[in-house]
Amino acid sequence: MSTVPSQPDPENDPRVKAVFDDIRATRKSDFVNNMWRYLAFDATLLEQTWAEVKRVMATPSSLDPLTKEMVYITASIINGCSYCVHSHTAAARAKGMTPQQHAELLSIVALAGKTNQLATGLQVPVDPVFDQG
Amino acid sequence: MSTVPSQPDPENDPRVKAVFDDIRATRKSDFVNNMWRYLAFDATLLEQTWAEVKRVMATPSSLDPLTKEMVYITASIINGCSYCVHSHTAAARAKGMTPQQHAELLSIVALAGKTNQLATGLQVPVDPVFDQG
Amino acid sequence: MSTVPSQPDPENDPRVKAVFDDIRATRKSDFVNNMWRYLAFDATLLEQTWAEVKRVMATPSSLDPLTKEMVYITASIINGCSYCVHSHTAAARAKGMTPQQHAELLSIVALAGKTNQLATGLQVPVDPVFDQG
Amino acid sequence: MSTVPSQPDPENDPRVKAVFDDIRATRKSDFVNNMWRYLAFDATLLEQTWAEVKRVMATPSSLDPLTKEMVYITASIINGCSYCVHSHTAAARAKGMTPQQHAELLSIVALAGKTNQLATGLQVPVDPVFDQG
Amino acid sequence: MSTVPSQPDPENDPRVKAVFDDIRATRKSDFVNNMWRYLAFDATLLEQTWAEVKRVMATPSSLDPLTKEMVYITASIINGCSYCVHSHTAAARAKGMTPQQHAELLSIVALAGKTNQLATGLQVPVDPVFDQG
Amino acid sequence: MSTVPSQPDPENDPRVKAVFDDIRATRKSDFVNNMWRYLAFDATLLEQTWAEVKRVMATPSSLDPLTKEMVYITASIINGCSYCVHSHTAAARAKGMTPQQHAELLSIVALAGKTNQLATGLQVPVDPVFDQG
Repeated sequence: MSTVPSQPDPENDPRVKAVFDDIRATRKSDFVNNMWRYLAFDATLLEQTWAEVKRVMATPSSLDPLTKEMVYITASIINGCSYCVHSHTAAARAKGMTPQQHAELLSIVALAGKTNQLATGLQVPVDPVFDQG
Repeated sequence: MSTVPSQPDPENDPRVKAVFDDIRATRKSDFVNNMWRYLAFDATLLEQTWAEVKRVMATPSSLDPLTKEMVYITASIINGCSYCVHSHTAAARAKGMTPQQHAELLSIVALAGKTNQLATGLQVPVDPVFDQG
Repeated sequence: MSTVPSQPDPENDPRVKAVFDDIRATRKSDFVNNMWRYLAFDATLLEQTWAEVKRVMATPSSLDPLTKEMVYITASIINGCSYCVHSHTAAARAKGMTPQQHAELLSIVALAGKTNQLATGLQVPVDPVFDQG
Repeated sequence: MSTVPSQPDPENDPRVKAVFDDIRATRKSDFVNNMWRYLAFDATLLEQTWAEVKRVMATPSSLDPLTKEMVYITASIINGCSYCVHSHTAAARAKGMTPQQHAELLSIVALAGKTNQLATGLQVPVDPVFDQG
Repeated sequence: MSTVPSQPDPENDPRVKAVFDDIRATRKSDFVNNMWRYLAFDATLLEQTWAEVKRVMATPSSLDPLTKEMVYITASIINGCSYCVHSHTAAARAKGMTPQQHAELLSIVALAGKTNQLATGLQVPVDPVFDQG
Repeated sequence: MSTVPSQPDPENDPRVKAVFDDIRATRKSDFVNNMWRYLAFDATLLEQTWAEVKRVMATPSSLDPLTKEMVYITASIINGCSYCVHSHTAAARAKGMTPQQHAELLSIVALAGKTNQLATGLQVPVDPVFDQG
């Protein structure tokens, strides 16, 4: 079930094909997951979203690829995006996340879920020492 | 402003003092931040919360301390906990997070904020290949 | 799957029937979607919810009907209500939302998802000029 | 700081005055808190919101008044509404919530914050036995 | 569909078996729901989560068991945890929640969803009288 | 209070100056609000964020500028971004939003806040007719 029609052959549109080709080349895999297949309902949205994902997630940077995926999983859990929890957990596993690291990651997300609510429930004032500007 | 009274000298309660002493020893610092000072309105809640934070965040494990803080910052941003964003950003900085890593972390959280909403807006079906069980 | 029993013939209850009849008359359609069928487990809750939806969404006002539905879709995405994303996207389409407008709407929701997290992550102080009171 | 102008004397508008008078009579108190003073920028919105709050919260029903306020606090924490956390904690206290009950309430909200994230992170399938309809 | 493998016989692990036995004894029922079966992918996470759920939810305290479950349902709805809404609604029903109380609970959660957004949209300043510390 | 240092003269960095100049030119105003001043702690993040805001919000498209801002306000309220609620309400007002339209917008957001929670609380199954793909 989706709010936009799935398209039998989205790569008939050359702009969509170019993005899918780049996804395959970047990931060194023939598989293009549903996120991109459904975003293909609008070529512009597809192009811009992929360009940003590629730049932020697939370019060497000051954070290692597995850390990035664990941050993405965290955000996806709290934003309540079922699809994204699935896709980024799979991506983290492909980048080497062990079951133990997965369990630890979930422990931190769970602990944050707890203390975030406590701090909001208590309305704890921010310590002046934390202020940077 | 808080929903519970701040206490002028919470360490008059020996259970509170024991927790504060352990916080200072664990962190090798005299500073006890407001989160713990306000949680002290209930010694049991204080003890249990600190015990879990210490176990999850201050015990050597399969994730390094800076990664853990970055996951905590991510959760705190999306849960909308202003206090926690401040305290965990300060903690990450104390553990070596550079301004460049901070900017990268925010880029990933921002990108996830974007694609999480897109996947939910499109109601993208989960690819069967992602299913683990 | 639902947390309340679906009822084979909810219109046996005259209060439910009155609401369903008004839904059909207001929308000029025989179709009554599941939201109302499940809310029918409590006639009072059904009556009050429909009365408010009708007043806010189906009464001519200072905002046009399509804009209203796009605001509703936005809220439903961010509140993570899968059912509501589906029902209000269908409603917006019925009121003339084009695929291009749909893609644009999602672009704005996605951009807001991004900058909202950035502002919270940075804890940007509100500019005094924005204050109205 | 607010997004609408505060009004020096909102009760010059007879519709606003009628609502404020009913708030005072219902609560047996002269105090009208800011929520209502700012909602007064639009008399219709003020009237409808107060009517619903009065009906749901101030009418004898199958749930006792303190339980209702604790549910309201819970929702306000998780929705991240700072104002509402303050106002409903004050209301619960006025209805007899003890510090111990307050701490217990926060323990449950914190635990839910934790297990909700775990279930979402694991994408636990719903047990068929839970289905009601 | 889940992000971790379901295990055909998780109780082969004695630590998992000990937790499942305690769940059965505490609840006086042979049924162990999926939350625990999937958490069993990591025995430590399972043990700690159950210990906390048992302590907070299954120990006599200043709040009655049904009130606790209604608070848990509220949190689960707003955190958008479909699994948890199902499991805690079932638990509340088992503890005596009537359809009328269920409808009332949903009315309060819905009203809070409404006024929380209004207060955030208006950015209503907190009344000084609400401040406790 | 912020998690990054505010900079006394961010435009000493020519990349920052170029973005600020474009903000001023695009908006035909000398005022550069805090969001951009704090994002300036990382020139790359600043450039990319502004480029996207300009493209999505300041380019003629299939949605009119005021509708776009109202969608942005909606997202900002539900994401709980206090800064963004302020800045986009000010932007909407500058683009002609009347107090009546503001009140209506808040009514819709509030109603969605209500029905989104009801649908999630009931776990209403999606009607097959809503499925597009």
